Amino acid sequence: MITLTPIGYVRSRLLEPADAPKQGSEGAPDAWLEFTPAIGLGLRDLALGTEVLILTWLDRADRDVLLVHPRDDPSTPLRGVFSTRSADRPNPIGIHRVRIAEIATATRIRVLDLEAVDGTPILDVKPVLDRIKDQ
Amino acid sequence: MITLTPIGYVRSRLLEPADAPKQGSEGAPDAWLEFTPAIGLGLRDLALGTEVLILTWLDRADRDVLLVHPRDDPSTPLRGVFSTRSADRPNPIGIHRVRIAEIATATRIRVLDLEAVDGTPILDVKPVLDRIKDQ
Repeated sequence: MITLTPIGYVRSRLLEPADAPKQGSEGAPDAWLEFTPAIGLGLRDLALGTEVLILTWLDRADRDVLLVHPRDDPSTPLRGVFSTRSADRPNPIGIHRVRIAEIATATRIRVLDLEAVDGTPILDVKPVLDRIKDQ
Repeated sequence: MITLTPIGYVRSRLLEPADAPKQGSEGAPDAWLEFTPAIGLGLRDLALGTEVLILTWLDRADRDVLLVHPRDDPSTPLRGVFSTRSADRPNPIGIHRVRIAEIATATRIRVLDLEAVDGTPILDVKPVLDRIKDQ
């Protein structure tokens, strides 16, 4: 068993998973990332305007699901969850590629086009590497 | 607190983190992914030759680190971990983009160029989406 502690939370006007687009590029709103003060030092080199990967814990997901209809469309054939981006999966970790739009304080950052709902725990932030290979 | 259960483990000839390249594209070997039978159904639509993202738990990482010398080079200035791909970070989740080279059984898959060491827990497998935006 592995234990994680969130490093922060998403603050968004998306309140329910049903309101969220499937991907950030499909009309998701801006969101604030509120980080815990204890990890603030690790954020100091994030730069305005750059893209980062945000890893989240999709805490409303069903972790017992192994087959899904892609995009929740019951007319599509069932697929194994590991060939889909479904939130429902054994370890529901979300990966979101977003651009930093504002750095208000050392632990409060606004990003564009984030499809995660309000209150979603943040697990990690990583740089987007230039080479496709390394993403 | 969030708890994860590994869905499998990496089997590799890389035995120590010191032996592993920093990125899979820098000379990492093939590796076997051995999944637990309970989640096998979720793997059924993975296709030979395609690229996938493997999420791992970097269980040898130091979780108290917030500043690092990039690429472990002490001559580089210290950077906040969230602007680096350092394994040492509060929630050390690795993201590896690899190609599926062999599907031996429903739960035993060989991939190319994986920099994770032998025994590394696997947390998730996700498809690589076509649009860069969504990776």
